[in-house]
Amino acid sequence: MIKRLCIIGVGLIGGSLARSLRQAGGVAEVVGSSRRAENLERAVSLGVIDRFDTDPAQAVKGADMVLVAVPLGSMESVFRAMAPGLSAEAVVTDAGSAKGSVIAAARSALGGALANLVPGHPIAGTEQSGVEASFAELFQRRRVILTPIAETRRAATKRVRAMWEQTGAEVVEMDAAHHDEILAATSHLPHVLAYSLVDALARMEDRVEIFRYAAGGFRDFTRIASSEPTMWHDICLANRSAILDVLARFQEDLDKLTVAIRDGDGAFIQEVFRRAKDARDRFTKTEDGVVPAE
Amino acid sequence: MIKRLCIIGVGLIGGSLARSLRQAGGVAEVVGSSRRAENLERAVSLGVIDRFDTDPAQAVKGADMVLVAVPLGSMESVFRAMAPGLSAEAVVTDAGSAKGSVIAAARSALGGALANLVPGHPIAGTEQSGVEASFAELFQRRRVILTPIAETRRAATKRVRAMWEQTGAEVVEMDAAHHDEILAATSHLPHVLAYSLVDALARMEDRVEIFRYAAGGFRDFTRIASSEPTMWHDICLANRSAILDVLARFQEDLDKLTVAIRDGDGAFIQEVFRRAKDARDRFTKTEDGVVPAE
Repeated sequence: MIKRLCIIGVGLIGGSLARSLRQAGGVAEVVGSSRRAENLERAVSLGVIDRFDTDPAQAVKGADMVLVAVPLGSMESVFRAMAPGLSAEAVVTDAGSAKGSVIAAARSALGGALANLVPGHPIAGTEQSGVEASFAELFQRRRVILTPIAETRRAATKRVRAMWEQTGAEVVEMDAAHHDEILAATSHLPHVLAYSLVDALARMEDRVEIFRYAAGGFRDFTRIASSEPTMWHDICLANRSAILDVLARFQEDLDKLTVAIRDGDGAFIQEVFRRAKDARDRFTKTEDGVVPAE
Repeated sequence: MIKRLCIIGVGLIGGSLARSLRQAGGVAEVVGSSRRAENLERAVSLGVIDRFDTDPAQAVKGADMVLVAVPLGSMESVFRAMAPGLSAEAVVTDAGSAKGSVIAAARSALGGALANLVPGHPIAGTEQSGVEASFAELFQRRRVILTPIAETRRAATKRVRAMWEQTGAEVVEMDAAHHDEILAATSHLPHVLAYSLVDALARMEDRVEIFRYAAGGFRDFTRIASSEPTMWHDICLANRSAILDVLARFQEDLDKLTVAIRDGDGAFIQEVFRRAKDARDRFTKTEDGVVPAE
Protein backbone atom coordinates (compact mmCIF):
# COMPACT_ATOMS: atom_id res chain seq x y z
CA MET A 1 0.00 0.00 0.00
CA ILE A 2 1.38 3.36 -1.04
CA LYS A 3 0.79 6.00 1.62
CA ARG A 4 1.35 9.06 -0.48
CA LEU A 5 1.79 8.89 -4.25
CA CYS A 6 3.05 12.02 -5.97
CA ILE A 7 2.39 12.25 -9.69
CA ILE A 8 4.28 14.90 -11.60
CA GLY A 9 2.57 15.40 -14.95
CA VAL A 10 -1.08 14.48 -14.44
CA GLY A 11 -2.02 13.44 -17.98
CA LEU A 12 -3.20 10.24 -19.62
CA ILE A 13 -0.57 8.01 -17.98
CA GLY A 14 -0.29 9.69 -14.59
CA GLY A 15 -4.05 10.13 -14.32
CA SER A 16 -4.75 6.52 -15.29
CA LEU A 17 -2.25 5.20 -12.71
CA ALA A 18 -3.92 7.27 -9.98
CA ARG A 19 -7.41 6.10 -10.98
CA SER A 20 -6.30 2.48 -11.15
CA LEU A 21 -4.52 2.43 -7.79
CA ARG A 22 -7.42 4.22 -6.10
CA GLN A 23 -9.85 1.67 -7.50
CA ALA A 24 -7.62 -1.19 -6.29
CA GLY A 25 -7.22 0.40 -2.86
CA GLY A 26 -3.47 0.54 -3.48
CA VAL A 27 -2.92 4.15 -2.44
CA ALA A 28 -4.04 6.30 0.49
CA GLU A 29 -3.37 9.78 -0.91
CA VAL A 30 -2.49 11.16 -4.34
CA VAL A 31 -0.75 14.50 -4.76
CA GLY A 32 -0.39 16.01 -8.21
CA SER A 33 2.01 18.50 -9.69
CA SER A 34 2.45 20.08 -13.10
CA ARG A 35 3.10 23.47 -14.60
CA ARG A 36 -0.50 24.48 -15.12
CA ALA A 37 -2.78 24.84 -12.10
CA GLU A 38 -5.93 24.63 -14.32
CA ASN A 39 -4.98 21.11 -15.31
CA LEU A 40 -4.45 20.14 -11.67
CA GLU A 41 -7.76 21.67 -10.62
CA ARG A 42 -9.49 19.59 -13.28
CA ALA A 43 -7.69 16.50 -11.98
CA VAL A 44 -8.99 17.24 -8.46
CA SER A 45 -12.53 17.78 -9.70
CA LEU A 46 -12.36 14.53 -11.67
CA GLY A 47 -11.34 12.77 -8.45
CA VAL A 48 -8.00 11.70 -9.94
CA ILE A 49 -5.85 13.46 -7.32
CA ASP A 50 -6.60 14.63 -3.76
CA ARG A 51 -4.59 17.86 -3.84
CA PHE A 52 -1.78 19.50 -5.74
CA ASP A 53 1.19 21.80 -5.62
CA THR A 54 2.67 23.37 -8.75
CA ASP A 55 6.09 23.36 -7.06
CA PRO A 56 7.55 19.85 -7.55
CA ALA A 57 9.72 20.11 -4.39
CA GLN A 58 6.63 20.83 -2.30
CA ALA A 59 4.52 18.21 -4.07
CA VAL A 60 6.92 15.33 -3.38
CA LYS A 61 7.23 16.16 0.34
CA GLY A 62 6.32 13.11 2.43
CA ALA A 63 5.61 10.95 -0.63
CA ASP A 64 6.80 7.34 -0.49
CA MET A 65 6.30 6.93 -4.26
CA VAL A 66 6.85 9.48 -7.03
CA LEU A 67 5.88 8.99 -10.67
CA VAL A 68 7.31 11.47 -13.15
CA ALA A 69 5.11 11.36 -16.26
CA VAL A 70 6.19 14.44 -18.20
CA PRO A 71 7.50 14.68 -21.79
CA LEU A 72 11.09 13.42 -22.09
CA GLY A 73 12.39 16.92 -22.77
CA SER A 74 11.18 18.06 -19.35
CA MET A 75 12.55 15.16 -17.29
CA GLU A 76 15.84 16.75 -16.27
CA SER A 77 14.32 20.05 -15.12
CA VAL A 78 11.59 18.22 -13.19
CA PHE A 79 14.15 15.96 -11.49
CA ARG A 80 16.21 19.01 -10.54
CA ALA A 81 13.19 20.89 -9.24
CA MET A 82 11.86 18.04 -7.12
CA ALA A 83 15.17 16.71 -5.73
CA PRO A 84 15.30 19.02 -2.66
CA GLY A 85 11.87 17.81 -1.49
CA LEU A 86 12.46 14.03 -1.74
CA SER A 87 12.56 12.07 1.49
CA ALA A 88 15.09 9.25 1.94
CA GLU A 89 12.33 6.65 1.53
CA ALA A 90 10.79 8.10 -1.62
CA VAL A 91 11.01 5.70 -4.56
CA VAL A 92 11.15 7.57 -7.88
CA THR A 93 9.96 6.10 -11.15
CA ASP A 94 8.93 7.55 -14.50
CA ALA A 95 6.91 6.75 -17.61
CA GLY A 96 9.25 7.90 -20.37
CA SER A 97 9.24 6.09 -23.74
CA ALA A 98 13.05 6.16 -23.93
CA LYS A 99 15.11 5.12 -20.93
CA GLY A 100 18.72 6.08 -21.73
CA SER A 101 17.92 9.79 -21.76
CA VAL A 102 15.91 9.59 -18.52
CA ILE A 103 18.78 7.84 -16.78
CA ALA A 104 21.24 10.48 -18.03
CA ALA A 105 18.89 13.22 -16.80
CA ALA A 106 18.59 11.55 -13.39
CA ARG A 107 22.34 11.12 -13.03
CA SER A 108 22.77 14.80 -13.70
CA ALA A 109 19.87 16.12 -11.61
CA LEU A 110 18.75 13.62 -8.96
CA GLY A 111 22.03 13.34 -7.06
CA GLY A 112 21.79 11.09 -4.00
CA ALA A 113 18.39 9.69 -4.92
CA LEU A 114 19.73 7.26 -7.56
CA ALA A 115 19.46 4.28 -5.17
CA ASN A 116 15.70 4.84 -5.16
CA LEU A 117 15.38 5.44 -8.92
CA VAL A 118 13.54 2.79 -10.94
CA PRO A 119 13.23 3.96 -14.57
CA GLY A 120 10.08 2.53 -16.09
CA HIS A 121 7.88 2.53 -19.18
CA PRO A 122 4.25 1.43 -19.21
CA ILE A 123 3.65 0.32 -22.82
CA ALA A 124 0.13 1.64 -22.83
CA GLY A 125 -1.65 4.70 -24.08
CA THR A 126 -3.80 5.97 -26.87
CA GLU A 127 -3.40 8.81 -29.36
CA GLN A 128 -5.37 10.88 -26.84
CA SER A 129 -3.63 12.86 -24.12
CA GLY A 130 -4.54 14.78 -20.99
CA VAL A 131 -6.14 13.85 -17.68
CA GLU A 132 -9.63 13.88 -19.26
CA ALA A 133 -8.57 10.87 -21.36
CA SER A 134 -7.31 8.88 -18.35
CA PHE A 135 -9.09 5.72 -17.21
CA ALA A 136 -8.42 3.05 -14.57
CA GLU A 137 -8.23 0.12 -17.00
CA LEU A 138 -5.50 1.56 -19.25
CA PHE A 139 -2.78 -0.78 -17.98
CA GLN A 140 -4.76 -4.00 -17.76
CA ARG A 141 -2.97 -6.78 -19.65
CA ARG A 142 -0.37 -4.27 -20.86
CA ARG A 143 3.35 -4.57 -20.28
CA VAL A 144 5.42 -2.30 -18.06
CA ILE A 145 9.18 -2.41 -18.64
CA LEU A 146 11.46 -1.48 -15.72
CA THR A 147 15.12 -0.70 -16.41
CA PRO A 148 16.82 -0.44 -12.99
CA ILE A 149 20.39 0.94 -13.02
CA ALA A 150 23.47 -0.24 -11.15
CA GLU A 151 22.70 1.99 -8.17
CA THR A 152 19.02 0.97 -7.83
CA ARG A 153 18.19 -0.85 -4.60
CA ARG A 154 16.39 -4.13 -5.16
CA ALA A 155 13.70 -3.07 -2.66
CA ALA A 156 12.89 0.00 -4.73
CA THR A 157 12.37 -2.07 -7.89
CA LYS A 158 10.14 -4.44 -5.92
CA ARG A 159 7.91 -1.60 -4.79
CA VAL A 160 7.52 -0.18 -8.30
CA ARG A 161 6.81 -3.66 -9.64
CA ALA A 162 4.12 -4.20 -7.00
CA MET A 163 2.53 -0.85 -7.87
CA TRP A 164 2.21 -1.63 -11.58
CA GLU A 165 1.03 -5.17 -10.93
CA GLN A 166 -1.87 -3.72 -8.97
CA THR A 167 -3.02 -1.98 -12.17
CA GLY A 168 -3.27 -5.32 -13.96
CA ALA A 169 -0.05 -4.90 -15.96
CA GLU A 170 2.64 -7.52 -16.55
CA VAL A 171 6.00 -6.18 -15.37
CA VAL A 172 9.31 -7.14 -17.00
CA GLU A 173 12.84 -5.92 -16.37
CA MET A 174 15.54 -5.33 -18.96
CA ASP A 175 18.56 -3.24 -19.79
CA ALA A 176 17.79 0.38 -20.73
CA ALA A 177 19.69 0.20 -24.03
CA HIS A 178 17.81 -2.93 -25.05
CA HIS A 179 14.51 -1.25 -24.19
CA ASP A 180 15.44 1.74 -26.32
CA GLU A 181 16.30 -0.42 -29.34
CA ILE A 182 13.07 -2.39 -29.13
CA LEU A 183 10.88 0.67 -28.71
CA ALA A 184 12.67 2.48 -31.53
CA ALA A 185 11.67 -0.39 -33.83
CA THR A 186 8.10 -1.06 -32.71
CA SER A 187 6.88 2.34 -31.60
CA HIS A 188 9.14 5.26 -32.46
CA LEU A 189 9.79 4.30 -36.11
CA PRO A 190 6.09 3.69 -36.87
CA HIS A 191 5.26 7.11 -35.42
CA VAL A 192 7.95 8.79 -37.54
CA LEU A 193 6.65 7.04 -40.67
CA ALA A 194 3.00 7.86 -39.94
CA TYR A 195 3.74 11.53 -39.26
CA SER A 196 5.93 11.75 -42.35
CA LEU A 197 3.35 10.10 -44.62
CA VAL A 198 0.42 12.20 -43.44
CA ASP A 199 2.48 15.37 -43.73
CA ALA A 200 3.61 14.41 -47.25
CA LEU A 201 0.00 13.82 -48.35
CA ALA A 202 -1.26 16.93 -46.58
CA ARG A 203 1.14 19.06 -48.60
CA MET A 204 0.10 17.63 -51.97
CA GLU A 205 -2.01 19.90 -54.17
CA ASP A 206 -5.05 17.67 -54.30
CA ARG A 207 -5.02 16.89 -50.60
CA VAL A 208 -8.73 17.50 -50.09
CA GLU A 209 -9.47 14.82 -52.70
CA ILE A 210 -6.75 12.57 -51.30
CA PHE A 211 -8.20 12.49 -47.82
CA ARG A 212 -11.73 12.28 -49.19
CA TYR A 213 -10.97 8.90 -50.74
CA ALA A 214 -8.80 7.58 -47.95
CA ALA A 215 -10.04 4.33 -46.53
CA GLY A 216 -9.96 2.11 -43.45
CA GLY A 217 -6.41 0.93 -44.10
CA PHE A 218 -5.28 4.55 -44.19
CA ARG A 219 -7.26 5.37 -41.06
CA ASP A 220 -5.59 2.65 -39.00
CA PHE A 221 -2.16 3.17 -40.53
CA THR A 222 -2.17 6.87 -39.68
CA ARG A 223 -4.04 6.87 -36.37
CA ILE A 224 -0.77 7.42 -34.46
CA ALA A 225 -0.12 10.60 -36.47
CA SER A 226 -2.78 12.16 -34.22
CA SER A 227 -0.47 11.71 -31.22
CA GLU A 228 0.83 14.69 -29.27
CA PRO A 229 3.59 16.37 -31.37
CA THR A 230 5.66 17.69 -28.44
CA MET A 231 5.79 14.31 -26.75
CA TRP A 232 6.96 12.63 -29.96
CA HIS A 233 9.39 15.42 -30.80
CA ASP A 234 10.97 14.77 -27.40
CA ILE A 235 11.09 11.01 -28.02
CA CYS A 236 12.80 11.51 -31.40
CA LEU A 237 15.52 13.57 -29.81
CA ALA A 238 15.82 11.49 -26.61
CA ASN A 239 16.15 8.18 -28.45
CA ARG A 240 17.84 9.65 -31.49
CA SER A 241 20.58 7.11 -31.99
CA ALA A 242 18.39 3.99 -31.75
CA ILE A 243 15.78 5.61 -34.01
CA LEU A 244 18.38 6.57 -36.61
CA ASP A 245 19.71 2.99 -36.58
CA VAL A 246 16.35 1.43 -37.26
CA LEU A 247 15.39 4.18 -39.73
CA ALA A 248 18.53 3.40 -41.73
CA ARG A 249 17.68 -0.30 -41.82
CA PHE A 250 14.13 0.47 -42.87
CA GLN A 251 15.19 2.94 -45.57
CA GLU A 252 17.60 0.37 -46.99
CA ASP A 253 14.77 -2.17 -47.21
CA LEU A 254 12.34 0.36 -48.66
CA ASP A 255 14.91 1.29 -51.31
CA LYS A 256 15.22 -2.36 -52.30
CA LEU A 257 11.45 -2.72 -52.53
CA THR A 258 11.22 0.50 -54.56
CA VAL A 259 13.79 -0.86 -57.03
CA ALA A 260 11.84 -4.12 -57.26
CA ILE A 261 8.63 -2.23 -58.06
CA ARG A 262 10.45 -0.11 -60.65
CA ASP A 263 12.04 -3.18 -62.26
CA GLY A 264 8.87 -5.26 -62.07
CA ASP A 265 10.67 -7.86 -59.92
CA GLY A 266 7.52 -9.71 -58.92
CA ALA A 267 9.31 -12.52 -57.08
CA PHE A 268 11.06 -10.08 -54.75
CA ILE A 269 7.84 -8.15 -54.05
CA GLN A 270 5.93 -11.36 -53.31
CA GLU A 271 8.70 -12.55 -50.99
CA VAL A 272 8.67 -9.34 -48.93
CA PHE A 273 4.87 -9.19 -48.74
CA ARG A 274 4.57 -12.88 -47.85
CA ARG A 275 7.20 -12.70 -45.09
CA ALA A 276 5.56 -9.58 -43.68
CA LYS A 277 2.10 -11.12 -43.73
CA ASP A 278 3.37 -14.24 -41.95
CA ALA A 279 5.08 -12.17 -39.25
CA ARG A 280 2.05 -9.90 -38.84
CA ASP A 281 -0.34 -12.87 -38.63
CA ARG A 282 1.87 -14.47 -35.96
CA PHE A 283 1.83 -11.18 -34.03
CA THR A 284 -1.98 -11.18 -34.08
CA LYS A 285 -1.98 -14.68 -32.62
CA THR A 286 0.49 -13.91 -29.81
CA GLU A 287 -1.67 -10.95 -28.87
CA ASP A 288 -4.21 -13.39 -27.50
CA GLY A 289 -1.97 -13.57 -24.42
CA VAL A 290 -0.96 -10.12 -23.27
CA VAL A 291 -2.47 -7.47 -25.52
CA PRO A 292 -0.09 -4.54 -25.51
CA ALA A 293 -1.32 -1.09 -26.56
CA GLU A 294 0.85 1.88 -27.54
CA MET B 1 -33.28 -4.95 -61.07
CA ILE B 2 -30.46 -7.13 -62.42
CA LYS B 3 -31.81 -10.30 -64.01
CA ARG B 4 -28.61 -12.29 -64.04
CA LEU B 5 -25.46 -11.09 -62.32
CA CYS B 6 -22.25 -12.94 -63.15
CA ILE B 7 -19.42 -12.57 -60.66
CA ILE B 8 -15.99 -13.68 -61.78
CA GLY B 9 -13.81 -14.06 -58.71
CA VAL B 10 -16.14 -14.85 -55.82
CA GLY B 11 -14.09 -13.52 -52.89
CA LEU B 12 -14.58 -10.80 -50.29
CA ILE B 13 -15.70 -8.12 -52.78
CA GLY B 14 -17.65 -10.28 -55.24
CA GLY B 15 -19.27 -12.27 -52.45
CA SER B 16 -20.25 -9.16 -50.51
CA LEU B 17 -21.82 -7.56 -53.60
CA ALA B 18 -23.90 -10.69 -54.22
CA ARG B 19 -25.03 -10.87 -50.58
CA SER B 20 -25.90 -7.18 -50.53
CA LEU B 21 -27.90 -7.18 -53.78
CA ARG B 22 -29.76 -10.33 -52.77
CA GLN B 23 -30.68 -8.76 -49.46
CA ALA B 24 -31.90 -5.61 -51.23
CA GLY B 25 -33.84 -7.61 -53.79
CA GLY B 26 -31.70 -6.06 -56.52
CA VAL B 27 -30.85 -9.26 -58.38
CA ALA B 28 -32.80 -12.30 -59.57
CA GLU B 29 -29.97 -14.76 -60.17
CA VAL B 30 -26.26 -14.83 -59.35
CA VAL B 31 -23.82 -16.97 -61.33
CA GLY B 32 -20.26 -17.36 -60.09
CA SER B 33 -17.04 -18.23 -61.82
CA SER B 34 -13.45 -18.66 -60.70
CA ARG B 35 -10.58 -21.04 -61.23
CA ARG B 36 -11.27 -23.30 -58.29
CA ALA B 37 -14.54 -25.25 -58.15
CA GLU B 38 -14.15 -25.85 -54.36
CA ASN B 39 -14.39 -22.13 -53.75
CA LEU B 40 -17.51 -21.88 -55.93
CA GLU B 41 -19.13 -24.85 -54.18
CA ARG B 42 -18.54 -23.10 -50.86
CA ALA B 43 -20.11 -19.93 -52.29
CA VAL B 44 -23.19 -21.92 -53.32
CA SER B 45 -23.47 -23.58 -49.91
CA LEU B 46 -23.13 -20.19 -48.22
CA GLY B 47 -26.01 -18.94 -50.36
CA VAL B 48 -23.84 -16.29 -52.00
CA ILE B 49 -24.34 -17.54 -55.57
CA ASP B 50 -27.03 -19.72 -57.16
CA ARG B 51 -24.81 -21.72 -59.52
CA PHE B 52 -21.43 -21.57 -61.15
CA ASP B 53 -19.32 -22.42 -64.16
CA THR B 54 -15.53 -22.47 -64.04
CA ASP B 55 -15.46 -21.44 -67.72
CA PRO B 56 -15.89 -17.62 -67.78
CA ALA B 57 -17.41 -17.67 -71.30
CA GLN B 58 -20.12 -20.06 -70.09
CA ALA B 59 -20.64 -18.23 -66.82
CA VAL B 60 -21.35 -14.85 -68.46
CA LYS B 61 -23.92 -16.32 -70.92
CA GLY B 62 -27.21 -14.47 -70.59
CA ALA B 63 -25.92 -12.16 -67.85
CA ASP B 64 -27.01 -8.53 -68.03
CA MET B 65 -24.34 -7.50 -65.49
CA VAL B 66 -20.83 -8.89 -65.06
CA LEU B 67 -18.48 -8.01 -62.17
CA VAL B 68 -14.86 -9.05 -62.58
CA ALA B 69 -13.33 -9.15 -59.09
CA VAL B 70 -10.05 -10.97 -59.64
CA PRO B 71 -6.49 -9.82 -58.80
CA LEU B 72 -5.25 -7.18 -61.24
CA GLY B 73 -2.72 -9.56 -62.75
CA SER B 74 -5.53 -11.86 -63.89
CA MET B 75 -7.80 -9.21 -65.43
CA GLU B 76 -6.61 -9.51 -69.01
CA SER B 77 -6.81 -13.29 -69.19
CA VAL B 78 -10.28 -13.24 -67.60
CA PHE B 79 -11.49 -10.57 -70.05
CA ARG B 80 -10.15 -12.63 -72.94
CA ALA B 81 -11.72 -15.84 -71.66
CA MET B 82 -15.16 -14.36 -71.06
CA ALA B 83 -15.42 -12.14 -74.17
CA PRO B 84 -16.91 -14.83 -76.47
CA GLY B 85 -19.81 -15.44 -74.04
CA LEU B 86 -20.88 -11.81 -73.51
CA SER B 87 -24.28 -10.79 -74.87
CA ALA B 88 -24.69 -7.37 -76.48
CA GLU B 89 -26.62 -6.10 -73.43
CA ALA B 90 -24.11 -7.28 -70.82
CA VAL B 91 -22.60 -4.42 -68.84
CA VAL B 92 -19.11 -5.24 -67.60
CA THR B 93 -17.55 -3.67 -64.52
CA ASP B 94 -14.69 -4.61 -62.23
CA ALA B 95 -13.35 -4.02 -58.72
CA GLY B 96 -9.67 -3.46 -59.38
CA SER B 97 -7.69 -1.07 -57.14
CA ALA B 98 -5.88 0.47 -60.13
CA LYS B 99 -7.88 1.54 -63.18
CA GLY B 100 -5.31 2.34 -65.88
CA SER B 101 -4.11 -1.24 -66.09
CA VAL B 102 -7.66 -2.62 -66.16
CA ILE B 103 -8.57 -0.32 -69.02
CA ALA B 104 -5.45 -1.35 -70.96
CA ALA B 105 -6.31 -5.01 -70.36
CA ALA B 106 -9.89 -4.44 -71.57
CA ARG B 107 -8.77 -2.61 -74.70
CA SER B 108 -6.55 -5.52 -75.54
CA ALA B 109 -8.91 -8.36 -74.63
CA LEU B 110 -12.56 -7.23 -74.57
CA GLY B 111 -12.82 -6.07 -78.16
CA GLY B 112 -16.30 -4.88 -79.11
CA ALA B 113 -17.58 -4.84 -75.53
CA LEU B 114 -15.87 -1.54 -74.62
CA ALA B 115 -19.11 0.44 -75.00
CA ASN B 116 -20.49 -1.59 -72.11
CA LEU B 117 -17.35 -1.40 -69.95
CA VAL B 118 -17.57 0.66 -66.75
CA PRO B 119 -14.28 0.33 -64.82
CA GLY B 120 -14.96 0.64 -61.11
CA HIS B 121 -13.39 0.46 -57.67
CA PRO B 122 -15.35 -0.06 -54.46
CA ILE B 123 -13.14 1.50 -51.76
CA ALA B 124 -14.08 -1.10 -49.22
CA GLY B 125 -12.57 -4.25 -47.83
CA THR B 126 -10.72 -5.62 -44.88
CA GLU B 127 -7.39 -7.38 -44.52
CA GLN B 128 -9.40 -10.61 -44.78
CA SER B 129 -10.05 -12.26 -48.12
CA GLY B 130 -12.19 -15.06 -49.53
CA VAL B 131 -15.91 -15.63 -49.83
CA GLU B 132 -16.10 -16.73 -46.17
CA ALA B 133 -15.19 -13.18 -45.16
CA SER B 134 -17.89 -11.59 -47.33
CA PHE B 135 -20.86 -9.80 -45.78
CA ALA B 136 -23.80 -7.79 -47.11
CA GLU B 137 -22.95 -4.55 -45.26
CA LEU B 138 -19.39 -4.18 -46.60
CA PHE B 139 -20.22 -1.28 -48.92
CA GLN B 140 -22.56 0.67 -46.67
CA ARG B 141 -21.41 4.31 -46.44
CA ARG B 142 -18.29 3.46 -48.47
CA ARG B 143 -17.33 5.10 -51.74
CA VAL B 144 -17.31 3.45 -55.14
CA ILE B 145 -15.32 5.22 -57.84
CA LEU B 146 -16.32 4.66 -61.48
CA THR B 147 -13.91 5.64 -64.26
CA PRO B 148 -15.84 5.32 -67.53
CA ILE B 149 -13.75 5.57 -70.71
CA ALA B 150 -14.45 7.44 -73.94
CA GLU B 151 -16.27 4.47 -75.46
CA THR B 152 -18.51 3.79 -72.43
CA ARG B 153 -22.23 4.31 -73.09
CA ARG B 154 -23.87 6.59 -70.55
CA ALA B 155 -26.58 3.98 -69.98
CA ALA B 156 -23.99 1.41 -68.91
CA THR B 157 -22.51 3.76 -66.32
CA LYS B 158 -26.01 4.48 -65.01
CA ARG B 159 -26.71 0.79 -64.50
CA VAL B 160 -23.44 0.19 -62.61
CA ARG B 161 -24.07 3.26 -60.49
CA ALA B 162 -27.57 2.03 -59.62
CA MET B 163 -26.18 -1.38 -58.65
CA TRP B 164 -23.64 0.04 -56.21
CA GLU B 165 -26.10 2.52 -54.77
CA GLN B 166 -28.32 -0.40 -53.84
CA THR B 167 -25.51 -1.67 -51.58
CA GLY B 168 -25.53 1.59 -49.62
CA ALA B 169 -22.39 3.00 -51.24
CA GLU B 170 -21.84 6.55 -52.49
CA VAL B 171 -20.84 6.49 -56.16
CA VAL B 172 -18.52 9.07 -57.71
CA GLU B 173 -17.02 9.31 -61.20
CA MET B 174 -13.55 10.47 -62.13
CA ASP B 175 -10.76 10.07 -64.63
CA ALA B 176 -8.84 6.79 -64.34
CA ALA B 177 -5.44 8.48 -64.05
CA HIS B 178 -6.70 10.70 -61.24
CA HIS B 179 -8.10 7.65 -59.43
CA ASP B 180 -4.75 5.91 -59.73
CA GLU B 181 -2.83 8.86 -58.29
CA ILE B 182 -5.17 9.23 -55.33
CA LEU B 183 -5.20 5.53 -54.50
CA ALA B 184 -1.41 5.33 -54.85
CA ALA B 185 -1.15 7.97 -52.13
CA THR B 186 -3.81 6.85 -49.69
CA SER B 187 -3.84 3.10 -50.10
CA HIS B 188 -1.01 1.64 -52.14
CA LEU B 189 1.82 3.59 -50.47
CA PRO B 190 0.63 2.80 -46.91
CA HIS B 191 0.51 -0.89 -47.83
CA VAL B 192 4.04 -0.77 -49.27
CA LEU B 193 5.31 0.95 -46.10
CA ALA B 194 3.52 -1.43 -43.74
CA TYR B 195 4.77 -4.52 -45.56
CA SER B 196 8.30 -3.12 -45.71
CA LEU B 197 8.36 -2.18 -42.02
CA VAL B 198 7.04 -5.52 -40.77
CA ASP B 199 9.45 -7.38 -43.03
CA ALA B 200 12.38 -5.27 -41.81
CA LEU B 201 11.50 -5.96 -38.15
CA ALA B 202 10.81 -9.64 -38.82
CA ARG B 203 14.32 -10.06 -40.16
CA MET B 204 16.02 -8.43 -37.16
CA GLU B 205 17.84 -10.76 -34.80
CA ASP B 206 15.74 -10.00 -31.76
CA ARG B 207 12.44 -10.18 -33.62
CA VAL B 208 10.75 -12.35 -30.99
CA GLU B 209 11.42 -9.68 -28.39
CA ILE B 210 10.53 -6.91 -30.82
CA PHE B 211 7.06 -8.26 -31.51
CA ARG B 212 6.57 -9.18 -27.85
CA TYR B 213 6.77 -5.54 -26.85
CA ALA B 214 4.90 -4.15 -29.82
CA ALA B 215 1.89 -2.12 -28.82
CA GLY B 216 -1.47 -0.86 -30.02
CA GLY B 217 0.05 1.79 -32.28
CA PHE B 218 2.10 -0.91 -33.98
CA ARG B 219 -0.92 -3.17 -34.27
CA ASP B 220 -3.01 -0.58 -36.09
CA PHE B 221 -0.11 0.73 -38.17
CA THR B 222 0.73 -2.74 -39.48
CA ARG B 223 -2.74 -4.29 -39.76
CA ILE B 224 -2.68 -3.85 -43.54
CA ALA B 225 0.52 -5.94 -43.73
CA SER B 226 -1.79 -8.93 -43.17
CA SER B 227 -3.42 -8.27 -46.55
CA GLU B 228 -3.23 -10.83 -49.33
CA PRO B 229 0.32 -10.67 -50.83
CA THR B 230 -0.63 -11.67 -54.40
CA MET B 231 -3.33 -9.03 -54.63
CA TRP B 232 -0.93 -6.33 -53.45
CA HIS B 233 1.91 -7.60 -55.61
CA ASP B 234 -0.44 -7.17 -58.58
CA ILE B 235 -1.43 -3.66 -57.45
CA CYS B 236 2.24 -2.63 -57.13
CA LEU B 237 2.94 -3.70 -60.69
CA ALA B 238 -0.36 -2.48 -62.15
CA ASN B 239 -0.10 1.01 -60.66
CA ARG B 240 3.68 1.10 -60.72
CA SER B 241 4.21 4.59 -62.07
CA ALA B 242 1.81 6.39 -59.71
CA ILE B 243 3.18 4.40 -56.75
CA LEU B 244 6.79 5.24 -57.68
CA ASP B 245 5.87 8.94 -57.93
CA VAL B 246 4.35 9.08 -54.47
CA LEU B 247 7.07 6.83 -53.00
CA ALA B 248 9.70 9.28 -54.30
CA ARG B 249 7.88 12.21 -52.67
CA PHE B 250 7.56 10.30 -49.42
CA GLN B 251 11.20 9.21 -49.40
CA GLU B 252 12.32 12.79 -49.99
CA ASP B 253 10.26 13.93 -46.99
CA LEU B 254 11.44 11.03 -44.84
CA ASP B 255 15.05 11.88 -45.71
CA LYS B 256 14.50 15.47 -44.56
CA LEU B 257 12.93 14.29 -41.31
CA THR B 258 15.80 11.83 -40.77
CA VAL B 259 18.33 14.64 -41.21
CA ALA B 260 16.35 16.79 -38.75
CA ILE B 261 16.42 13.99 -36.16
CA ARG B 262 20.15 13.48 -36.73
CA ASP B 263 20.87 17.20 -36.42
CA GLY B 264 18.51 17.70 -33.48
CA ASP B 265 16.47 20.23 -35.48
CA GLY B 266 13.56 20.33 -33.06
CA ALA B 267 11.68 23.12 -34.84
CA PHE B 268 11.54 21.14 -38.10
CA ILE B 269 10.41 17.97 -36.30
CA GLN B 270 7.69 19.84 -34.41
CA GLU B 271 6.49 21.49 -37.62
CA VAL B 272 6.13 18.15 -39.46
CA PHE B 273 4.42 16.42 -36.52
CA ARG B 274 2.06 19.34 -35.91
CA ARG B 275 1.03 19.62 -39.57
CA ALA B 276 0.48 15.86 -39.73
CA LYS B 277 -1.58 15.82 -36.55
CA ASP B 278 -3.76 18.69 -37.79
CA ALA B 279 -4.38 16.91 -41.12
CA ARG B 280 -5.06 13.58 -39.42
CA ASP B 281 -7.44 15.16 -36.90
CA ARG B 282 -9.33 16.86 -39.76
CA PHE B 283 -9.55 13.50 -41.54
CA THR B 284 -11.12 11.94 -38.43
CA LYS B 285 -13.72 14.67 -38.39
CA THR B 286 -14.66 14.36 -42.07
CA GLU B 287 -15.10 10.65 -41.52
CA ASP B 288 -18.29 11.44 -39.63
CA GLY B 289 -19.91 11.79 -43.04
CA VAL B 290 -18.99 8.92 -45.31
CA VAL B 291 -16.72 6.49 -43.47
CA PRO B 292 -14.56 4.82 -46.08
CA ALA B 293 -12.82 1.54 -45.28
CA GLU B 294 -9.88 0.05 -47.17
